[in-house]
Amino acid sequence: MPVYRLTIAYRGGEFCGWQSQHNGTSVQSVLEDALGRLFGQPIRCRAAGRTDAGVHAMGQVVSFFCERILPERALIHGTNHFLPSAVGVLAATVAADDFDARFSASGKLYRYQIWNAPVRSPLHQDTHWHIMQPLQHEAMQKAAALLVGRHDFRAFRAADCERKTTTRLVRRLDVLVPAQPDALPFATTGSPVIHIEVSATAFLKNMVRILVGTLAQVGRGRMSVEHVAMLLQSGDRTQAGPTAPAHGLTLVSVEYGPRTGV
Amino acid sequence: MPVYRLTIAYRGGEFCGWQSQHNGTSVQSVLEDALGRLFGQPIRCRAAGRTDAGVHAMGQVVSFFCERILPERALIHGTNHFLPSAVGVLAATVAADDFDARFSASGKLYRYQIWNAPVRSPLHQDTHWHIMQPLQHEAMQKAAALLVGRHDFRAFRAADCERKTTTRLVRRLDVLVPAQPDALPFATTGSPVIHIEVSATAFLKNMVRILVGTLAQVGRGRMSVEHVAMLLQSGDRTQAGPTAPAHGLTLVSVEYGPRTGV
Repeated sequence: MPVYRLTIAYRGGEFCGWQSQHNGTSVQSVLEDALGRLFGQPIRCRAAGRTDAGVHAMGQVVSFFCERILPERALIHGTNHFLPSAVGVLAATVAADDFDARFSASGKLYRYQIWNAPVRSPLHQDTHWHIMQPLQHEAMQKAAALLVGRHDFRAFRAADCERKTTTRLVRRLDVLVPAQPDALPFATTGSPVIHIEVSATAFLKNMVRILVGTLAQVGRGRMSVEHVAMLLQSGDRTQAGPTAPAHGLTLVSVEYGPRTGV
Repeated sequence: MPVYRLTIAYRGGEFCGWQSQHNGTSVQSVLEDALGRLFGQPIRCRAAGRTDAGVHAMGQVVSFFCERILPERALIHGTNHFLPSAVGVLAATVAADDFDARFSASGKLYRYQIWNAPVRSPLHQDTHWHIMQPLQHEAMQKAAALLVGRHDFRAFRAADCERKTTTRLVRRLDVLVPAQPDALPFATTGSPVIHIEVSATAFLKNMVRILVGTLAQVGRGRMSVEHVAMLLQSGDRTQAGPTAPAHGLTLVSVEYGPRTGV
């Protein structure tokens, strides 16, 4: 039976997250509904990352089984026809028989977007966390560098996270200041947009958002770089920063390949 | 009586355009309402560009009179408090007594955004025109270069445009391919995002959107570069491209200074 692999994008604000729940519409439910209508039979999907309510995706990967064969273009455009505009299939292919979007993944890349300006921006509101106080990028990047590598990220997970092992390998954690094409009508210390990108083999629950909330505390000068190093030792969630809001986060891409150094 | 100058941003999809009309909510009406509540008296605003329904702004400039004096910060944050989230004041200042957002403007910069990919993108849907067929950027840029300068833009205005003079000075018209940070899961000929930027002293009704619709025809290979040159001679609207959809367009900034070469 063919295993299909889809790459999908969505606006997270319109969903209760990837996973089907009792309250609200999930990305999973609208995608399974669309695929069910296209194939004429019930389809169950698995996603690489079970994104929280409000989190966006531009490269989420999903897998499902179906004995019916559809060519790539028909699968893409047919599914898109039945999807609401907030979700779209970008690519589709038949995968190896043992492909599983979640368990075959060898890594994921997330991007967190911050609007760092004295005033709110209507054009960034749905996708960026607004922080009014000017952030010190250099201190944030120093703290970020300390978190790269294989560490116990116990201090950076939700209270209800049920994973038994809390050691994860963070391959990259960067505080980036993308070039802004236009002059802004207010005073800023550099660019008003900050991106925090994090690539890891796997993540704990809310890990990216707690990493970002912690780096934001460093950027505000409320937490020292040394304190962040200490968090890896103590594993004390209460000493880390707050969980950054979901709407700033996007699942950018999922890697598949040999799981190295997990 | 002080003249105030505001720089505002808005998401155009939530409004019937800048100007108050019988149908729908205008940006002008929500801004005048917010200012009226802040100052405790009726305020009438004038904008540099009367953007159409659906057109966004990141640097629209507005002027109004009011005898009451408010400091800059109080004006910005007080007005934002009363505005819906789709509109925001970015900057405020007291201007010269004879400042008029519309008539003092010496130029405006617009950006048109295109999502040029075989599939639609939920994350670009509200702000980019989706064109599936790969566009030939070089041909578009050649045609754009022909339109720069002082020309009669009669062929590039809405049928109901009432301006008597149709000669305008286009200072810059560029087809840009901004760098994309991430790999995409589908085949593209270069970047899927194309920006068309146009700077001019003044514009005719729908001029930017008809320029973009015409350049898109060139990019698709349906119109030659020579045909575009001919349009400036013939002035025949029916021979130009269609009016590109409003939601791809953003008013980026307004220039004030000596009106040179108008």
